[in-house]
Amino acid sequence: MFVFILILIIFSSSFVNGADQNTCTPNSIQKNTSTILSNLRREMQNEGIGIYVIFSDDEHGSEYTQLYDRRRDWITGFSGSAGIAVVSLRTAALWTDSRYFTQAEEQLDCANWLLMRDRNPGVPTLINWLVSEANQTALPPGTTTVFTTTSWWTSANTALKEIGKELRPVNDLVDRIWPAGERPNQSQNSIVTHEIQYAGETVAQKLNRTTNEIKRRGATTTVINALDEIAWLFNLRGSDIPYNPFFKSYAIVHANYEVNQPELFVNLSQLNTNQHPPGVRLFDYSMFWSRLNITATDTNISRIWVSAKVSQAILSLIPNNKLLLPLSNSPVQRIKARKNPIERKGMQDCQIRDSIARMKHLGWLEQQLNDGKSVNETQSSEQLLVYQKQQVIFQFPSFRTISASGDRAAIIHYSATPDKARLITKNEVYLLDAGSQYLDCTTDITRTHHFGSPKNLEKRAYTRVLQGVLDIADAVFPTGTYGRSLDHLGRMHLYRDGMTFGHGIGHGIGHFLSVHEGPQRIASAYSQYEEALADEMFISNEPGFYKPDDFGIRIEDDIEVVLANKSTYDNTQYLRFNTITLLPYERSLIDVTLLTNAQLNTINQYHTKVAQVLEPLLSGDEAALNALRSRTARIDLPSTTTSNSPSSTTTSNSPSSTTTSNSPSSTTTSNSPSSATTSNPPSSTTTSTSPNRAFMSISSPSLITFVLILIHLF
Amino acid sequence: MFVFILILIIFSSSFVNGADQNTCTPNSIQKNTSTILSNLRREMQNEGIGIYVIFSDDEHGSEYTQLYDRRRDWITGFSGSAGIAVVSLRTAALWTDSRYFTQAEEQLDCANWLLMRDRNPGVPTLINWLVSEANQTALPPGTTTVFTTTSWWTSANTALKEIGKELRPVNDLVDRIWPAGERPNQSQNSIVTHEIQYAGETVAQKLNRTTNEIKRRGATTTVINALDEIAWLFNLRGSDIPYNPFFKSYAIVHANYEVNQPELFVNLSQLNTNQHPPGVRLFDYSMFWSRLNITATDTNISRIWVSAKVSQAILSLIPNNKLLLPLSNSPVQRIKARKNPIERKGMQDCQIRDSIARMKHLGWLEQQLNDGKSVNETQSSEQLLVYQKQQVIFQFPSFRTISASGDRAAIIHYSATPDKARLITKNEVYLLDAGSQYLDCTTDITRTHHFGSPKNLEKRAYTRVLQGVLDIADAVFPTGTYGRSLDHLGRMHLYRDGMTFGHGIGHGIGHFLSVHEGPQRIASAYSQYEEALADEMFISNEPGFYKPDDFGIRIEDDIEVVLANKSTYDNTQYLRFNTITLLPYERSLIDVTLLTNAQLNTINQYHTKVAQVLEPLLSGDEAALNALRSRTARIDLPSTTTSNSPSSTTTSNSPSSTTTSNSPSSTTTSNSPSSATTSNPPSSTTTSTSPNRAFMSISSPSLITFVLILIHLF
Repeated sequence: MFVFILILIIFSSSFVNGADQNTCTPNSIQKNTSTILSNLRREMQNEGIGIYVIFSDDEHGSEYTQLYDRRRDWITGFSGSAGIAVVSLRTAALWTDSRYFTQAEEQLDCANWLLMRDRNPGVPTLINWLVSEANQTALPPGTTTVFTTTSWWTSANTALKEIGKELRPVNDLVDRIWPAGERPNQSQNSIVTHEIQYAGETVAQKLNRTTNEIKRRGATTTVINALDEIAWLFNLRGSDIPYNPFFKSYAIVHANYEVNQPELFVNLSQLNTNQHPPGVRLFDYSMFWSRLNITATDTNISRIWVSAKVSQAILSLIPNNKLLLPLSNSPVQRIKARKNPIERKGMQDCQIRDSIARMKHLGWLEQQLNDGKSVNETQSSEQLLVYQKQQVIFQFPSFRTISASGDRAAIIHYSATPDKARLITKNEVYLLDAGSQYLDCTTDITRTHHFGSPKNLEKRAYTRVLQGVLDIADAVFPTGTYGRSLDHLGRMHLYRDGMTFGHGIGHGIGHFLSVHEGPQRIASAYSQYEEALADEMFISNEPGFYKPDDFGIRIEDDIEVVLANKSTYDNTQYLRFNTITLLPYERSLIDVTLLTNAQLNTINQYHTKVAQVLEPLLSGDEAALNALRSRTARIDLPSTTTSNSPSSTTTSNSPSSTTTSNSPSSTTTSNSPSSATTSNPPSSTTTSTSPNRAFMSISSPSLITFVLILIHLF
Repeated sequence: MFVFILILIIFSSSFVNGADQNTCTPNSIQKNTSTILSNLRREMQNEGIGIYVIFSDDEHGSEYTQLYDRRRDWITGFSGSAGIAVVSLRTAALWTDSRYFTQAEEQLDCANWLLMRDRNPGVPTLINWLVSEANQTALPPGTTTVFTTTSWWTSANTALKEIGKELRPVNDLVDRIWPAGERPNQSQNSIVTHEIQYAGETVAQKLNRTTNEIKRRGATTTVINALDEIAWLFNLRGSDIPYNPFFKSYAIVHANYEVNQPELFVNLSQLNTNQHPPGVRLFDYSMFWSRLNITATDTNISRIWVSAKVSQAILSLIPNNKLLLPLSNSPVQRIKARKNPIERKGMQDCQIRDSIARMKHLGWLEQQLNDGKSVNETQSSEQLLVYQKQQVIFQFPSFRTISASGDRAAIIHYSATPDKARLITKNEVYLLDAGSQYLDCTTDITRTHHFGSPKNLEKRAYTRVLQGVLDIADAVFPTGTYGRSLDHLGRMHLYRDGMTFGHGIGHGIGHFLSVHEGPQRIASAYSQYEEALADEMFISNEPGFYKPDDFGIRIEDDIEVVLANKSTYDNTQYLRFNTITLLPYERSLIDVTLLTNAQLNTINQYHTKVAQVLEPLLSGDEAALNALRSRTARIDLPSTTTSNSPSSTTTSNSPSSTTTSNSPSSTTTSNSPSSATTSNPPSSTTTSTSPNRAFMSISSPSLITFVLILIHLF
């Protein structure tokens, strides 16, 4: 009896443990994928594999995929932007990150699928699961290599090798079982020339720069599958990828491009003959593989440069001794990151157009709220789109607008839907993260608003985020500096209040290309593919703070890297940032007592400039002008506030704000000689004897895990 | 004729280029190594190799080596701490870095050796040279694997593989030709127990912690050749390595240490039986290789952990399938970096003893100068040693004191010698970087002094360096943060003035161990072996500025990582620093107008504490007390200084100081209500319209290359 109970306990606990961890609760709205799985397993056996991995990627590593390419969504029911499925003959499991746990619990076919909440305690990594399943399966595991990055393939095989297994490349099995009637069509819209007045350089000039880079590295050829690189290089744009002006394509570029013309592979029916770029050989998209083969076996071609992000399908066709190793960032990616003068002007100009749209929208929204009319998150983003579309050469948004009211703003990648959209009110924050594609640039701007009286914590958090934005924007650094060396500047003010945020600070921004591009970034984690900041690059500047079930703050400016001074000591060239976004910060959310004088001055100067530029452009729109003027009016230093104990300063004993000290013998005055600035949070005193007070106490702390670093934010 | 001249020009230019680049000028004081080279080449041929690489390392990767181990010095004539020699049957070449170019030009046997000035334009890397020489040599290249790190071996072989060659391990060839009469004896001093009152933990406790770490990684055994790790683990100290209390040794530690006791290999004649650590099997040093072989072939030992820094000799005896891969930091290194409570107390306590020595020395020095007596750099460091030795449980210096007057201070690793020592004067800076080994800690402290009226640039540079020290010390950051994320804080004030320095900011510090230890650091470059900062770690904080042929500044405090607050939002634990060094900064070199109020307050508070602690301990020494009091007296804000144009701020247009703004509407007052602080350098105005003025103009800029990042500084 005892033994029986023991066995029962052990069995139950393992069952319960398994159930709690790696499953989710079935419900009626979830898709039933039983037939799909059964068909997939049949195809797997036909192909001789026992495990099949289905990525969310298309052939080109696109950040967003066409509906036609949503294979992983179709087989699992889950539609989040990040998630990988692993189907064996017995099991089916989906891995996704914490941004999407809730969404997966709602959408995944939990009756048939395990939900692996990536990085949660006790949850196996995908590769560990793969190895363990492979260990119990006679048939090998497989993937479709056009959808598999070469780095994933290599990592997985390294792990599988330890048990004497390896991945088998198979055809697209989902393609075989996805009924044409159910499957959305491929998008195959026209490909058009990106006019020189916007592009700023001819294809020949770009090829010259690219091939110089190829030669500098001792390579003879590069093979490209990244759609933004191809669009940029050949001055062509399409509209087949959501939010991006791209078209499916490949390219092979030879160093001696004038003689051995670059090869561009597109669906030829999308490209009118009069749009063919000069000096470029055009092939149909389907011809890529055979042409790649010819390139790879051409004895005149000795060294082929591919990025670490290409598909395994591409890499597997290139003999190892012909590869430029180690794999590194594509030459095109590196070159286009530093924009030419026309591109730079475009990036700056359309910020102004975006500002007009944003201010008109803000004026409208404020008016609605003042008039007592109800507006919800989706109505708001729809109205923003109306104003965006009014701007000349606006094409479409650069990503799905994040329009988030109150506690929805704490969900970093929140996506409002009409049926569940919340009202925007005067009592809560409203976070708006939106961007545009214009013919002459791409933008990505976030402002957090409050139309009433924010609570203290919201102001404190907003101000800490704003201080991070200002200190990043104010940085001076030598050429060769990586964004990761500056990352701390955007977090340090938040840190002193025990606040942090689970995403990076900056991503590169394209020029009528992808809203997220590399190889530069500003984040804390090391990446071997990160490259140093250089002048002529553009990057976002977007710290934030998210308090689950309460509110969220994010402020995002777009900034340009520009030359600062050259040292008089050693010829080092220094760089700095120029903020190109021109939109006011939210006065109602600023706690002036936390700012240094320098930061306050920077804000006032910036607001002066914003008002100067935008006022004439908003004439006639009283609501917009009101919204502008109220937000750009000069912010004064606060009037007298009590100073603290003589020994209180911002010393290392108590993590506190980094502003000016508040010892009685040094006070910061403004207009009135007797006023003083303190740097303390109103509800605590900063003394060297009470370090525990340095973090403001919160009445209802929620122990909720914060979002992980979001690689997909950029 | 024309052709002849052309050939002559080409020949000459290549000869001149070769001569300029990779040679140096013979002189009479250089050692004649002709016979040595000839003997070495004979041994090389006996061993069947055509090229031999001679490192400066001993068997243990020691930062400093015994005289007995100075093989590279002996064969080249060059005695700098970093440099590798490559001898082929035809050529002999020495690689060294820019710290040592001048020294190499003086010492290297230039008649027989090429001087490869590492990283200069046109100078081949050692590995490239090795490959090119190997390509022209029938016999393979070789090294002595006990002196070769496994990472160097792997890199070299990867390169050689491309030409179908590989390294051959050979015996110590220098040993064969170095006449015993000429060679210094090995140092084999007594090994003694490091008493528990200092060590704080028993060997058993340390073994417990170490083996927990080994088990956590799934390993069964670790093999150690790092002398500091062995000394720490077994609570033993020696004195065979200059500046370090180490003794040559190896260790093999098994996870089941109670049953399979750790094996310690030392020269048994150095260790008295009553000093044998309990629970440890002792073998003679020479037994290591056979015991390692037994370990490596023992079927019960499945996974062996070695660090990436072990010798190739060790790695080559361990089968690949038994290695814990990838190679990572030793478990002992990681564990000892976080010091136990007794160790921490020791680290703090002996800072005070060092302060006494430093203040007494400073008092003495100031007195000498005031009395018009001449003191030079070596006399000064000798006198410091007198005071150091007066401190209880002082053992010996932790490194060779850097005592540098005037422009000598611009040479980062300057080493004064009595014959060339400069006078210390009242007209120039004096930089003193010294440290001590006590039974209860290791220290490493730098102060830069000026005993008269420094010039503006010296004050400006000193203050920028000091701001860097303060901002590093003031940092607050979450657990998991790497030092490289904080590095910018120590440089950003210098950057605004176009100033930088070519070394890292912080290195770990041992506990009566090595003055430089890992795995934590604060530097800008990425290192895969760097680990995150954690409480209970100790690290240096040492930015600087060096103007060749003029002056140098460095300020170095030792700091401890301590817990700060836990966030109320998400349970993140924050960390901060506690400065344990207690020595005044140099008032005469501080430009108060550059400081923020917070920084000024921090300095005043720190000086108050320094004075409080040291005053009673220096009683009776009037000179020391004067030196203390004059430097720790409160620094006031400057009196009224003119404010600048209304639009001037520290905006992104002009890289300038980061202090409070100077617009007329916000002024910083001190005692007198009408005083104001500006943040501008006295000789330029910071306005948004003249960005070029942001860097102070220097009347005689010298275009001299700055020193590279000095990996050997830590």
